[in-house]
Amino acid sequence: MSSILVIGTVAFDSIKTPFAEADQVLGGSATFFAMAARLFTPVQLVAIVGKDFPHHHLQMFEENGIDLKGLVHADGETFRWKGEYEDNMNVRRTLETHLNVLEQFEPDLPAGYRSAEYVFLANINPDLQLKVLDQLEKPRLVCCDTMNLWIIHQRADLEKVFKRVDILIISEEEAHMLTKEHNIIKAARQILKMGGFSLIIKRGGYGAILFTQNSQVFAIPAYPLEDVVDPTGAGDSFAGGFLGYLAARERMDIETVQRAMIYGNIVASFAVEGFSVERLLTLSRESLRNRLGDFLMMTHLAPASVHVE
Amino acid sequence: MSSILVIGTVAFDSIKTPFAEADQVLGGSATFFAMAARLFTPVQLVAIVGKDFPHHHLQMFEENGIDLKGLVHADGETFRWKGEYEDNMNVRRTLETHLNVLEQFEPDLPAGYRSAEYVFLANINPDLQLKVLDQLEKPRLVCCDTMNLWIIHQRADLEKVFKRVDILIISEEEAHMLTKEHNIIKAARQILKMGGFSLIIKRGGYGAILFTQNSQVFAIPAYPLEDVVDPTGAGDSFAGGFLGYLAARERMDIETVQRAMIYGNIVASFAVEGFSVERLLTLSRESLRNRLGDFLMMTHLAPASVHVE
Repeated sequence: MSSILVIGTVAFDSIKTPFAEADQVLGGSATFFAMAARLFTPVQLVAIVGKDFPHHHLQMFEENGIDLKGLVHADGETFRWKGEYEDNMNVRRTLETHLNVLEQFEPDLPAGYRSAEYVFLANINPDLQLKVLDQLEKPRLVCCDTMNLWIIHQRADLEKVFKRVDILIISEEEAHMLTKEHNIIKAARQILKMGGFSLIIKRGGYGAILFTQNSQVFAIPAYPLEDVVDPTGAGDSFAGGFLGYLAARERMDIETVQRAMIYGNIVASFAVEGFSVERLLTLSRESLRNRLGDFLMMTHLAPASVHVE
Repeated sequence: MSSILVIGTVAFDSIKTPFAEADQVLGGSATFFAMAARLFTPVQLVAIVGKDFPHHHLQMFEENGIDLKGLVHADGETFRWKGEYEDNMNVRRTLETHLNVLEQFEPDLPAGYRSAEYVFLANINPDLQLKVLDQLEKPRLVCCDTMNLWIIHQRADLEKVFKRVDILIISEEEAHMLTKEHNIIKAARQILKMGGFSLIIKRGGYGAILFTQNSQVFAIPAYPLEDVVDPTGAGDSFAGGFLGYLAARERMDIETVQRAMIYGNIVASFAVEGFSVERLLTLSRESLRNRLGDFLMMTHLAPASVHVE
């Protein structure tokens, strides 16, 4: 079992859905990733918070196997994001973004972090993702996420990052933005040419699909959920479950990667059942296992039936 | 192996996609269904066409195991539909509908058809679906599709149909229209109360999901396609592959139904690779088997890997 280093954001989110709202709750790409991955393996968190970041969140991270030596405490306020979801929960609008301390973030990895083997470059400025990559001695598996903002405004930096990652994990909308291509296979082919990575495209309430450089494809539907409270952090939680499982297994063969996708999918299905990390926080390995069993029943033919007539 | 009776439309479609267009090609819900189902079992076609319906289409049906004793030839023109697809091919707009001979259609089943055991009520006025049901002696399995028009304007008739079907096959958009519910599970729960049927919700480029009265769920992603030429008829082709497989096997246990969904999914993936029924017409059992094998590889963990850790 290897630990994972994640760089990304720690934030206060204010969220409105058609059914409920939450004000200034703990969020951020690194937060969701870490709280998902820690279900499988210890996590080293590289991020920045302000003076306003409360002690009980720090304590919560530490109690959950998340190492905070890489968490910078800066003067100023913590990054804040405000967003709103439409009726079908698949479309969201950003209402406000206050970078605050993020603007002064210069990641400088603690000595013990530089030997990290499993790394997640969560959604943050690609310039910062590059700075972390430069400090790593010999990472074994680097996964990466991004967002529309960097695709539009920092494409060159982003493509530099892409050249150095093993698995790129982005949303279907981002795949479309990167390529202007609506067909997911055509988009995937173009994106695969931007580096040597495997590609996972997340499809929100419709699941995820993996494309490898040697043309393997693996597609899973989402776990069907009756009560989606807040989709924020679903993608980061998917990545956390995915990479957490891989780091815990220390294997990267295609079957392990496929299983890791299913774990990511299931962890994400829990994440969206509450605001912030509240559902991830209370999630037990047993609930995870049970839902994984349900998912396999819902998506796989009985073994005796898996043949072609 | 049992044959299938289908009632629905036979039409001339004019279609525009972002990439190509086709003018007055053979279409209609019963046409696509029949051309898909005939890959598995003989089909009896109940529909109406006008004087303008060319002999070579009749010949094509007959050469493909489709019995035309139930096809009415009326004075007037064949039903025509004109539509256009948006960039992502998942959204379509109807530009023109000319019912023509459809307005005078009074289905009167040939004597030999009344004993049909497997029946598909393809998308057509629910009043006509009811008239066919009334003439059937003892159907074993009735599946049904519908569309937005009947949900809005003939809800009462539609609900009468629902009470008499075993499997309802509709699109996600139609599920939403029926219930005003965005969450697919909540929508499914409401729809399942409208009758004693199992429900399959088709999700376009995202696959399909089955819900049974006893809370079983089975979800499959779509077969990922690089070249979608024309999505018209995808849903009817899905239903044709689905019911065709069930009628050929003469079984209705859950595993057979799950396999039937996968067959429907694969047949639909071929249907959209051409305009009209051109790809279904040339489709061989071998191509079908090969893509089915690919699909299982793309969606199923290797058997040894299907366990919960």
